[in-house]
Amino acid sequence: MGKRFDLDEVRALASEILVANGAAQENAAAVAEVMTLAERDGCPSHGLFRLPGYVASLRSGRADGGAVPVVEDRAPSIVAVDARNGFAPPALLAGRGPLIEKARAQGVAFLGIRNSLHFAALWPDVEPLAEAGLVAIAMVDSQSFLPPWGGARALYGTNPVAFACPRAEGPPMVWDQASSALARGEIMIAARDGHEVPAGAGRDADGAPTTDPKAILEGGTQLPFGGYKGASIALMVELLAAGLTGGNFGFESTAEHNADGGPSNAGECIIAIDPAKTSGEDFLGRVEGLFQRILGDGEARLPGDRRHANRARANREGIEVPDALYDKITALRQG
Amino acid sequence: MGKRFDLDEVRALASEILVANGAAQENAAAVAEVMTLAERDGCPSHGLFRLPGYVASLRSGRADGGAVPVVEDRAPSIVAVDARNGFAPPALLAGRGPLIEKARAQGVAFLGIRNSLHFAALWPDVEPLAEAGLVAIAMVDSQSFLPPWGGARALYGTNPVAFACPRAEGPPMVWDQASSALARGEIMIAARDGHEVPAGAGRDADGAPTTDPKAILEGGTQLPFGGYKGASIALMVELLAAGLTGGNFGFESTAEHNADGGPSNAGECIIAIDPAKTSGEDFLGRVEGLFQRILGDGEARLPGDRRHANRARANREGIEVPDALYDKITALRQG
Repeated sequence: MGKRFDLDEVRALASEILVANGAAQENAAAVAEVMTLAERDGCPSHGLFRLPGYVASLRSGRADGGAVPVVEDRAPSIVAVDARNGFAPPALLAGRGPLIEKARAQGVAFLGIRNSLHFAALWPDVEPLAEAGLVAIAMVDSQSFLPPWGGARALYGTNPVAFACPRAEGPPMVWDQASSALARGEIMIAARDGHEVPAGAGRDADGAPTTDPKAILEGGTQLPFGGYKGASIALMVELLAAGLTGGNFGFESTAEHNADGGPSNAGECIIAIDPAKTSGEDFLGRVEGLFQRILGDGEARLPGDRRHANRARANREGIEVPDALYDKITALRQG
Repeated sequence: MGKRFDLDEVRALASEILVANGAAQENAAAVAEVMTLAERDGCPSHGLFRLPGYVASLRSGRADGGAVPVVEDRAPSIVAVDARNGFAPPALLAGRGPLIEKARAQGVAFLGIRNSLHFAALWPDVEPLAEAGLVAIAMVDSQSFLPPWGGARALYGTNPVAFACPRAEGPPMVWDQASSALARGEIMIAARDGHEVPAGAGRDADGAPTTDPKAILEGGTQLPFGGYKGASIALMVELLAAGLTGGNFGFESTAEHNADGGPSNAGECIIAIDPAKTSGEDFLGRVEGLFQRILGDGEARLPGDRRHANRARANREGIEVPDALYDKITALRQG
């Protein structure tokens, strides 16, 4: 029911399709890379599954596949990137170097990205920063899918937050979680596969709770994780990722969206902190002590452990792409 | 069943009791202020209810009531405060000016506080920053009360996060929420008053879910809000508030604690960002547009609205202190 590919093949395939649909080589490579990382780490909902959406936004003209991100040095600890209506990965690549440099020089730095189409998992945006020795938090908004707490109408995006912390050895500790009970991609996949979603995931168009993913996607709303506290986090993400960066709020993103099925044009921010500049001595040693206590408690695991296991296997054995998805993707060659 | 006091009387009473128990005048005033703000805003669980705990930690010698916080300028965007085993409020006052100055000059700044006993609501730590025009996030850890996700033993503190955003007019939008399903103070008050707590708040000493607050407090564990996502946030707070600052992790705080009932000696961090330095144009106007959309959606309210209503009433009419609490507090005069 599927074909196996090694990761280089996945990367090349994704890149080729994007180029065939008008993306510049460099931009296509950056976008293909994040899809490949998602496949590698066992997150198919952010892997090649997203490729048709990227292509749709290129074809509709909402995404500029040739965009060259503009980097702005706005203050000693602030870097901004105008993605010029291009995809987020090239903008992230452009901003990452200045962000790392500023965080190391100043102790903490803030990267704001605007006019950017983000359609990827968020952990690839912070993991490289932790590999560079920094602690990092990223937030991105999306179209409006969640009502404010006590409200009825979709306003906030699913607004994921990702966090990365370096470790003395091995890959950083990284988590990445939507402010909604379920990620949008999980609901889309449940709808595609005809599964129900857990109670609490959303409401239908009439405002009634539902476990039918299609009812949520077609005029319904998603709900935050953890009740009003998740809604508070979603609101914070709007203010930081869109308000501070000049990116679209969720409702602005929705207003601009042409329902092509592609990514939202929204905002993103990343805060990076250099533990060598703060007051915590022996940061890596101390946090490892905490991690070992987690790992020493029965079934407890560190966030991201499952991804690391998938990663090792995919590096060895490649990944499987379902036939239906492969056919859908390769049909996009005719740009 | 209670006596009414205006806020100046609350402030003076709290300060007097702290001084009678060995706190320096300045430190007592700073601590009394945050208890008074909690009473004013209708959060009695962080008001005078905490005074016996502050006093207990002074009497046991775990808190140094005479501590003079030491401010360290560690990098252009990093300020640290060693609270010298004193209470957090004087350390926060000492660090706030440098934090604001650095955030305005650099765009973003980080304040790390260590060796500090925090026993207050967290929103008073960020609201003054938003009143100064900055967006701010604060995190503080505590003794171990929450297991890691999938684990059985208490490891993380209740680890609140507070967020503040300035508004064009009126008080800033501020929220403050524990990473646990319930704040520790809410469970303590339920135990005192003989109420059950909602399902999901915690487990008893045998690891079984319970709604008995005493079973949670006596050898049990609290649970995070929102399942594994709340646990991820609690873990992030340990790493930022303790790891980056050199403050105690939750388990270190527990190990040092002598069960006097007073505050944990832990760490705190605050990140402050100047919207005038980031890339979002007309920040106050744009975020007001978002806030008005929230307020225009039926029953939806902004986080903190209830506190502001309580605040207006308390400024006008003062607050009521239950007789039992008043008697308990005034009995602490004999230092």
